[in-house]
Amino acid sequence: MSLGIEHVIHIGAGLPGPLNDQPQELFDASGRLVAELAELPPQGARRMSANPHANGGLLLRDLKMPDFREYAFKVPLPGTGGPGDTRVLGVFLSAVAQLNQQPRHFRIFGPDETLSNGLEAVFAVTNRQWVAETRSNDEFLARSGQVMEMLSEHQCEGWLEGYLLTGRHGLFNCYEAFIHIVDSMFNQHAKWLKVTASLSWRPRIASLNYLLASHVWRQDHNGFSHQDPGFIDHVVNKKAEVVRVYLPPDANCLLSTMDHCLRSRHYVNVVIAGKHPAPQWLTMDAAIDHCTKGIGVWQWASNEYDAQPDVVMGCAGDVPTLETLAAVSILRQHLPDLKVRVVNVVDLMKLQPQSEHPHGLSDPDFDALFTTDRPVIFAFHAYPWLIHRLTYRRNNHHNLHVRGYKEEGTITTSFDMTVLNDLDRFHLVMDVIDRVPQTGAKGLHLKRQLQDKLIEHKRYIDRCGQDMPEIRNWQWGNPHPLNFGNQSPPLPA
Amino acid sequence: MSLGIEHVIHIGAGLPGPLNDQPQELFDASGRLVAELAELPPQGARRMSANPHANGGLLLRDLKMPDFREYAFKVPLPGTGGPGDTRVLGVFLSAVAQLNQQPRHFRIFGPDETLSNGLEAVFAVTNRQWVAETRSNDEFLARSGQVMEMLSEHQCEGWLEGYLLTGRHGLFNCYEAFIHIVDSMFNQHAKWLKVTASLSWRPRIASLNYLLASHVWRQDHNGFSHQDPGFIDHVVNKKAEVVRVYLPPDANCLLSTMDHCLRSRHYVNVVIAGKHPAPQWLTMDAAIDHCTKGIGVWQWASNEYDAQPDVVMGCAGDVPTLETLAAVSILRQHLPDLKVRVVNVVDLMKLQPQSEHPHGLSDPDFDALFTTDRPVIFAFHAYPWLIHRLTYRRNNHHNLHVRGYKEEGTITTSFDMTVLNDLDRFHLVMDVIDRVPQTGAKGLHLKRQLQDKLIEHKRYIDRCGQDMPEIRNWQWGNPHPLNFGNQSPPLPA
Repeated sequence: MSLGIEHVIHIGAGLPGPLNDQPQELFDASGRLVAELAELPPQGARRMSANPHANGGLLLRDLKMPDFREYAFKVPLPGTGGPGDTRVLGVFLSAVAQLNQQPRHFRIFGPDETLSNGLEAVFAVTNRQWVAETRSNDEFLARSGQVMEMLSEHQCEGWLEGYLLTGRHGLFNCYEAFIHIVDSMFNQHAKWLKVTASLSWRPRIASLNYLLASHVWRQDHNGFSHQDPGFIDHVVNKKAEVVRVYLPPDANCLLSTMDHCLRSRHYVNVVIAGKHPAPQWLTMDAAIDHCTKGIGVWQWASNEYDAQPDVVMGCAGDVPTLETLAAVSILRQHLPDLKVRVVNVVDLMKLQPQSEHPHGLSDPDFDALFTTDRPVIFAFHAYPWLIHRLTYRRNNHHNLHVRGYKEEGTITTSFDMTVLNDLDRFHLVMDVIDRVPQTGAKGLHLKRQLQDKLIEHKRYIDRCGQDMPEIRNWQWGNPHPLNFGNQSPPLPA
Repeated sequence: MSLGIEHVIHIGAGLPGPLNDQPQELFDASGRLVAELAELPPQGARRMSANPHANGGLLLRDLKMPDFREYAFKVPLPGTGGPGDTRVLGVFLSAVAQLNQQPRHFRIFGPDETLSNGLEAVFAVTNRQWVAETRSNDEFLARSGQVMEMLSEHQCEGWLEGYLLTGRHGLFNCYEAFIHIVDSMFNQHAKWLKVTASLSWRPRIASLNYLLASHVWRQDHNGFSHQDPGFIDHVVNKKAEVVRVYLPPDANCLLSTMDHCLRSRHYVNVVIAGKHPAPQWLTMDAAIDHCTKGIGVWQWASNEYDAQPDVVMGCAGDVPTLETLAAVSILRQHLPDLKVRVVNVVDLMKLQPQSEHPHGLSDPDFDALFTTDRPVIFAFHAYPWLIHRLTYRRNNHHNLHVRGYKEEGTITTSFDMTVLNDLDRFHLVMDVIDRVPQTGAKGLHLKRQLQDKLIEHKRYIDRCGQDMPEIRNWQWGNPHPLNFGNQSPPLPA
């Protein structure tokens, strides 16, 4: 008797109809499956449940990483103009892509935005993988490439999750507002990471890395529909052990952060960065130091030295950092006696208590930065209440005053976006004056001038369609050119 | 000369090629379009920009509403068993559907879950609209019907938005976890409502109503993948003027809430309700009173009378309300001297300051409920930090201790879900004991017994696959049958 594939098909085909009526052909006298059938299923790693491609951590190899320091942007002085932080990152990512072509285990995913997010440099070394028809004016399409694009955030997320789960590495670049499209998919992946982290037979996989460029503050020509910084609110609802959120303030910090994320395992890393020309603050050495700590005082921007500050200016995100430093330059020029401390946050989870997140600062370390009794004006990239949510148990929480996106926006200038949401340098200075009574009559006088300045700003952008020269041309280190104009009296001595 | 449609096609077809070279055929001597062409475009309301179907508020008529009081569930005593809150709502919704069939301007949307969400009663009066092939065992399919189902939350959201924008009314019923699939679509609709609310020529449209049944706490057989109560975190990031969140604790409150939502205009209403058999607390009169206030003391469950309470037990959501009342019954039996106040929240936005949300309580009203100095143990339906985010400016915030879903779950019993997240009656009592030192040795003794009880619970469900009889059979008004068993000594006198 020969039992071949036909029998197996017959057994299968019979279900759920009448069963095979010749069991003696299938089982031996002791009731065991006959050897010819028992040999049919695959063995060992060919079994579906034991296939290493279904347990990608078994296949995962480290990325070959270039030295990110070599891609540093030169910052001779804080405030040096940069070309757009993601554009600096793009060159580094192109090196990552190139080093990991053979064997290929690194890809960049995104909905037709790799160029628009400032990562054009990667097309110097690879292409968009594209197997359909091409036209003569197509750019960077090839049968094989490390960039996967489709104008479907769902498709990009699904591609990347599958790529990670089978033991490879990748990055999803997306407009910040539209990453909400995959909220539900992110949920399931984060839940999967939480559960599998406790399964000893599942080695960890590469992290799911999101680069949210084209963020809420710079949708100058897209407007309100493209403004939503709420993905991080969604992300931090998931288990602290698996979620990480980074807001690098400049290109060197972005390089240091991304190097860390690409080497990490079994996390979801959310990195938010800008693509527009923007001032740079830290040399590479300073950036590494700052990102390693995740949060810290920017001593070069502060004037408290070894005294207690009168006010702490906190900031997280590139645009809030710019507005904070511009506010500090106004304060230092017009209220020079005021002791100001600047605290910048790269790793958002540093703000949470140590008991809530593995990155959380201890209470003494938090108090050392934010004091226990001084007003804190905090300029934040996203919805302001997230900062309160992360810090409500901290000692100085009652003194914390947060500005952020409060769902006010339209097609307008980049500075006006901050004005609409009270995050601009003028509002930040006024917030300080409101909370630091010792600024006295001089403070109140400055506040009135800044109120006039905001009216002047509105008038100017309505007339000229761009921001005032003193905004566009402002640079850290020069006195803030507050041209108060003829309508304002000079500052009191 | 006759200028007909061919000319128009010719002009169009020419673009962007060579332009019509006979302008004298199209324009008169003064440069005006010739009358025959000028008459071609539609006039008045036939113009695309002025078509009332593109400005649905112009077409909107009020729903014919049945009297929701007639659908009340009889509650002779608090704790009376109900059939599942959405099942009671279903009968009311069937009446809404029936009253608005001619002209038809009310529909129910959802991904194949109308039955699964407990709304089966609507199929007594209408059907699922289905224009494709049918089979003999299909249920409730018809060429015309007021229920729109497709297993695509995106499609349901899109259908409903279009239906609302063209001047009709509707309801989206969905599993709570999977409504995140439309986070991004919700964003855009909420932004649209914000902007159009300030356009005088756009009359308001009907609200976008979400009924999130099949919620996080009762995914007994679906488990962790079906647990995510974060949609409300996402919703409350949008403008306070357009978002409303309701957590009715029982069927009569759900009826009162839904009647309000269906009559409302230009909001997004999120209503979270259970479908499983659950105790009922309020008569219809009491429910109307409670929902009208949106938040209030449940005097019948409290024992503080006219004294200051020792502790306030806050709750929002059906399962947290059940666990809170069960905890209160333990406290009243075992620590009878303790003065307990129960505050239930239906309208979540009552918690926010008046300055932040139009529904927000004034500070004196908030303080009157939650005191300025007593511990508050708050059992919440969703992620606990949302309550902190809404209340961090309140006087008594430092005394607020919130329990909620903290991303712990699996396939398990319904009571065990609350245990995994420290929201169960035993943890809530232990929270009280930890925060009210005057419970003294008696309190500490009770706490130890409850710790043993939690171990007993774990052992019982592992062995029996269901909750202990004292959990399943507990009823408000009977003493809590805390059978501490042989391992625990009797309570001290």
